[in-house]
Amino acid sequence: MRPVTDAHSPLALAQGLIRCPSVTPQEGGALAYLAGILAQAGFSVERPVFSEPGTPDVENLYARIGEGPCLLLAGHTDVVPPGDASAWRHAPFAGAVEGGELYGRGAVDMKGGIACMLAAVLAFLDRRGPDFGGAIAFLVTGDEEGPAVNGTVKLLDWARARGERFSHCLLGEPTNPDTLGEMIKIGRRGSLTASLTVHGVQGHVAYPHRAENPIPGLLRLAQGLLAEPLDGGTAHFDASNLEFTTMDVGNPSTNVIPAEARATFNIRFNDLWTPETLAAELERRLAAAAGNTVRYSLDVRPTNSVAFLTAPDAFVERVADAIEAETGRRPALSTTGGTSDARFIKDACPVIEFGLVGRTMHQVDERVAVADLDRLAAIVGRVLDAYFPADDATPRQA
Amino acid sequence: MRPVTDAHSPLALAQGLIRCPSVTPQEGGALAYLAGILAQAGFSVERPVFSEPGTPDVENLYARIGEGPCLLLAGHTDVVPPGDASAWRHAPFAGAVEGGELYGRGAVDMKGGIACMLAAVLAFLDRRGPDFGGAIAFLVTGDEEGPAVNGTVKLLDWARARGERFSHCLLGEPTNPDTLGEMIKIGRRGSLTASLTVHGVQGHVAYPHRAENPIPGLLRLAQGLLAEPLDGGTAHFDASNLEFTTMDVGNPSTNVIPAEARATFNIRFNDLWTPETLAAELERRLAAAAGNTVRYSLDVRPTNSVAFLTAPDAFVERVADAIEAETGRRPALSTTGGTSDARFIKDACPVIEFGLVGRTMHQVDERVAVADLDRLAAIVGRVLDAYFPADDATPRQA
Ligand SMILES: [Zn+2]
Ligand SMILES: [Zn+2]
Repeated sequence: MRPVTDAHSPLALAQGLIRCPSVTPQEGGALAYLAGILAQAGFSVERPVFSEPGTPDVENLYARIGEGPCLLLAGHTDVVPPGDASAWRHAPFAGAVEGGELYGRGAVDMKGGIACMLAAVLAFLDRRGPDFGGAIAFLVTGDEEGPAVNGTVKLLDWARARGERFSHCLLGEPTNPDTLGEMIKIGRRGSLTASLTVHGVQGHVAYPHRAENPIPGLLRLAQGLLAEPLDGGTAHFDASNLEFTTMDVGNPSTNVIPAEARATFNIRFNDLWTPETLAAELERRLAAAAGNTVRYSLDVRPTNSVAFLTAPDAFVERVADAIEAETGRRPALSTTGGTSDARFIKDACPVIEFGLVGRTMHQVDERVAVADLDRLAAIVGRVLDAYFPADDATPRQA
Repeated sequence: MRPVTDAHSPLALAQGLIRCPSVTPQEGGALAYLAGILAQAGFSVERPVFSEPGTPDVENLYARIGEGPCLLLAGHTDVVPPGDASAWRHAPFAGAVEGGELYGRGAVDMKGGIACMLAAVLAFLDRRGPDFGGAIAFLVTGDEEGPAVNGTVKLLDWARARGERFSHCLLGEPTNPDTLGEMIKIGRRGSLTASLTVHGVQGHVAYPHRAENPIPGLLRLAQGLLAEPLDGGTAHFDASNLEFTTMDVGNPSTNVIPAEARATFNIRFNDLWTPETLAAELERRLAAAAGNTVRYSLDVRPTNSVAFLTAPDAFVERVADAIEAETGRRPALSTTGGTSDARFIKDACPVIEFGLVGRTMHQVDERVAVADLDRLAAIVGRVLDAYFPADDATPRQA
């Protein structure tokens, strides 16, 4: 058993990770850094590499310690590119601290989050030793910001094939919009993308009766899709929302009526819908708007992003209690925002997301308050203590 | 005075012109061919070349015979490209005849029309001699199918500067949709093109409240433009008509709300409108549709294409009489279709258009019935006889 050292503070661990330039799909030394520390702390560590034709090979990490009900801590060490490094106040892979803030790509998304979970686990093992009455696992991918093909999905399959089972998962993505403690994510909306093409007949603008302009038809169908809300939201979800992302004809001739007009839209949908029921509703709305006059085709892209919810239960309450104890804030239980790897993990066990403040993620001068790193580590420490109570060999579960 | 020969039949003249490969801006020998014949017939012939930065130099022709009130015969010898020559039944510049039809690029648009006017004039001069009591002029450009910058506009300015004046003009464009004699054009609609841009705020589809999608705004403005007809037409004009020609966002990211959406539309407008009153109406409709919520800008392109009408008068009646006498059909007096050089000529004198059957114009296997060439030449001959009556030194005019 090692003593807790400054080298294992949340700040030191976050700096160690930031200094590894792990832009997807580069490992950059980040997983090796984690592997070394976890192995030293008694974890069995695996480094599976996954590949798929057409995508780069990606390294991943799986580590586990203990026996019994297993709390999974999940995340990613890959980061988005820093962009113009000279635009940063401090070099994006230097891990500089100024004014109480740690600068660097991944500071909040999500090397900082991993550092806090790791610091909390190391301190917990120091306090409790390896026989803490359960198991802790780290599932860390290097392919979250990229194609996400050789990452969490394959890593979960790989773990399942090895017989690994998990009781709950905490995913350390930055969930707080502005202030640490504001928000837990207990689910995510699904995402569906579709393209709509209206077919017309090309012709000269001076002879519109010999042509069939597809643009008014596209306007009509688009209005038909937007006219009524998809729903009014549910207990834990906002209303589903449709956004047109592009609309293109590409006709350079101002005296020619085009033959086709196309639009693409994306829907973020709640737990009232599946991709299948949503596609049926789209077809219904389009058919009603088209009548017998608009010829169109709808191409709904396959999606593995469905809406899911981790029902607020004792585990969620335990995490919320820990957050409130450290920050004085009772976090909102939210399902807003984009998609995350939680959409894959939810098939393995109940998953909730909590991490740092995401305001600067993916931007120049991504940074995190050092005090937030310490508070997040303390929150995870409280979750571990509550999940594996010292006076009881059986962990209290939700 | 020359005898009328087979070499001066409408067919022979049309073949002679078709065999000159005069794709805009190439002269191809076509104007030289005309110049030779006209000079031999007693015309004074000029061949002005016009140029303008950014456009190719273009050759043109102006020829005149006689004194007094001048009937102007106008047209163009340039043709659109033949496309894939191997797709033609007969080579596009060969002037082959099969089944009573003359094949070739320009057969109807409008080397055939020029050939008929020329044949009619040569026969008229043979019958009447050079002192027929008036003047006849040919104004033929090589820049109608191209940018139309170094053609009729400059040729009319050039003629005006020389003191040339015209009483009436017959422009030999193909005006008949299906059958010779169906239609005279006594005016043309104007053409106005404008681009509409709706300004939004880019963002992520998962956070629509932080973005402002310009596409619904564009839909709303487009509907506002299309909701009410511009007018119900006038005595000699169809209703004005607006066609969207393109609508483009160009956003490849299905998870990004775009910053801008653009559309372009063209309006063919009648004599109820000028480009200025039309632009004001567009601004009025857009402002009403936008309310306080849609931010947009409208860019109306400058246009020299205004609606014009040659009031049906004795000259129009004379041409219609000639057509009816040769074909048995009383032609419709129309203002439909695209624009033509008549929009420039109308500032010099009253202009009407009548020519061959346009069905195959600009297409593979453009062709004309030889019988139609003969009939059109006979119609023009009747117009000349009526315009310059033999028993009266003063031509009867409208
Ligand atoms: Zn992330
Ligand atoms: Zn033409």
